[in-house]
Amino acid sequence: MSRPHTRSLVSLALAAAALLAGAPLPAAEHPIVIVIHGGAGVIERAHMTAEREASYRAGLGAALDAGFAVLERGGSSLDAVAAAVRTREDDPQFNAGRGAVLNHDGICELDAAIMDGTGPRAGAVAGVHHVKNPIELARLVMDKSPHVLLAGQGAEEFALSQGVTLVPESYFITPERVRELEEAKRTAAESAPTTPLPLRPRGMGTVGAVALDAQGHLAAATSTGGITNKLYGRIGDTPVIGAGTYASESCAVSGTGQGEFFMRQVVAYDICAMMQYQHLPLARAVDLMIHDKLRRTGGEGGVIALDRDGNFAMDFNSAGMHRGVRNSAGRREIAMYRDAN
Amino acid sequence: MSRPHTRSLVSLALAAAALLAGAPLPAAEHPIVIVIHGGAGVIERAHMTAEREASYRAGLGAALDAGFAVLERGGSSLDAVAAAVRTREDDPQFNAGRGAVLNHDGICELDAAIMDGTGPRAGAVAGVHHVKNPIELARLVMDKSPHVLLAGQGAEEFALSQGVTLVPESYFITPERVRELEEAKRTAAESAPTTPLPLRPRGMGTVGAVALDAQGHLAAATSTGGITNKLYGRIGDTPVIGAGTYASESCAVSGTGQGEFFMRQVVAYDICAMMQYQHLPLARAVDLMIHDKLRRTGGEGGVIALDRDGNFAMDFNSAGMHRGVRNSAGRREIAMYRDAN
Repeated sequence: MSRPHTRSLVSLALAAAALLAGAPLPAAEHPIVIVIHGGAGVIERAHMTAEREASYRAGLGAALDAGFAVLERGGSSLDAVAAAVRTREDDPQFNAGRGAVLNHDGICELDAAIMDGTGPRAGAVAGVHHVKNPIELARLVMDKSPHVLLAGQGAEEFALSQGVTLVPESYFITPERVRELEEAKRTAAESAPTTPLPLRPRGMGTVGAVALDAQGHLAAATSTGGITNKLYGRIGDTPVIGAGTYASESCAVSGTGQGEFFMRQVVAYDICAMMQYQHLPLARAVDLMIHDKLRRTGGEGGVIALDRDGNFAMDFNSAGMHRGVRNSAGRREIAMYRDAN
Repeated sequence: MSRPHTRSLVSLALAAAALLAGAPLPAAEHPIVIVIHGGAGVIERAHMTAEREASYRAGLGAALDAGFAVLERGGSSLDAVAAAVRTREDDPQFNAGRGAVLNHDGICELDAAIMDGTGPRAGAVAGVHHVKNPIELARLVMDKSPHVLLAGQGAEEFALSQGVTLVPESYFITPERVRELEEAKRTAAESAPTTPLPLRPRGMGTVGAVALDAQGHLAAATSTGGITNKLYGRIGDTPVIGAGTYASESCAVSGTGQGEFFMRQVVAYDICAMMQYQHLPLARAVDLMIHDKLRRTGGEGGVIALDRDGNFAMDFNSAGMHRGVRNSAGRREIAMYRDAN
């Protein structure tokens, strides 16, 4: 019962400080930080138009600022990561919610997870077809059910029981994703029939966020449509606690890339484990995971990660990764390519 | 291409040795070991009849011997754990396959995972209703799809595409599980309506196995119906790689208990991580996990675990756990209660 009370006092104090200073909020006892990603993959200048790049940057900026605004008014890291993910579930250019990639049968099957490093507590959904904001349903699973992961029709039954309005499958489908599926199927058909479905699509637009709030609490959230042309029923790393999403009291991670590799190597938790057990700094643990352990198995992708002191990492072994960071020290950066731009 | 060849040579050598000795096989370069569990929970003498105890012991013994026979003839740890799990999917007294517990809607939703520590490779299925042996479908996901986890109807579509014959939902349902569901619903109705569904059933009969073969390869497998009265679509820890099932080159773990706790704490992988990063012996890592870390969050259950040297652990913080071990040093034990019997 004491946390909401404490939070509102801190919030009041922060607001008062802002009024007095007439300036960006001063660093609280804990720095506040949000880090986001919007997918890793073949993101290169050669494949990008100026309009498209500007549009991606605007989408990333809107998510970053939505999440940071929550932290700035004393809100929780959990609310901040949910806000930063939700804006991009509604933005058709990212592979989550509306505009998600299509499975082999031409529909969107959506996965999402959210985790509160305090507890820890976690909620996730997999394979939902009719939920506008899967990240909000993941939050309901955490807050209102005894379970961590609900999938498919059962997850949608639970959504209905919680008063969530379902939307038709057509809401999610965009012409660009239809074209991408056709292209993926053509490529698959041209390969030998025994070749597994291609798991290395041109761009992977999974969205994620990690945040540290003024109370020093960490949270992580991730949402995705998975991988174009995936088999019906495929669950990737995003909703798997430990693989694509993890938060503890000392570390929060959200991943993007070839989900199957993240699952076999328990990527998000492994970063936290290396920090806790080997006392590695965050950046070193992330570097080892992405450029050594994941690369060694042939896995491609990246992660964003954050520790309780506000140190963060945005690292990837793919050509690029949509990413951004904003913190109470006045830093605000958005980048897409290898070269920090 | 060289592994099957090497394996058959080793197998031949072992068979020749057995013929010459007319006795149990001598320890190979690597010891061979299989460890199984058949669920943790309120397993106490006071709640057990002599007939029921004998029947459980017979079921555990059959599984142990089926898995050990595979290892003894030079088979892989992967084949051994699959065999040890399959016998109990077919045995209605365990909570896996036929005789699995019922969800809130009165049907069986089955989860299973298998992992080969070499690679590593993994396959899992969740929420299947019509697959007689979910562990075999998990193996097909690993061997024949590019994915790690398939759920629900999509998993069954994949099963059909692989020539698996589906069975009616009624195949899985036993009168005892119907009674258990009625009892769980009565208990839930007597609690305050806002209380989450009870997650601490009387017995949890998830089945699992870990094995070490003559080539020194580890594998793990787990299969379950989950928890009585679970929400439709609930996925527990069993098919989540890292939570209820994990295998690497140096460690294999299968868990049983309150799945949600295992998921939030990434139990199976965390044991392997403590061994790798903190250089803890297997038994110490398992002890810390079960009696300290899991207990601290209120989580109840147990694990079986095995390292590459053939050291094993069967530990639990519940009243009892169905368990057994057999190895090439001539050890063969089956136990259910706290006191190693």
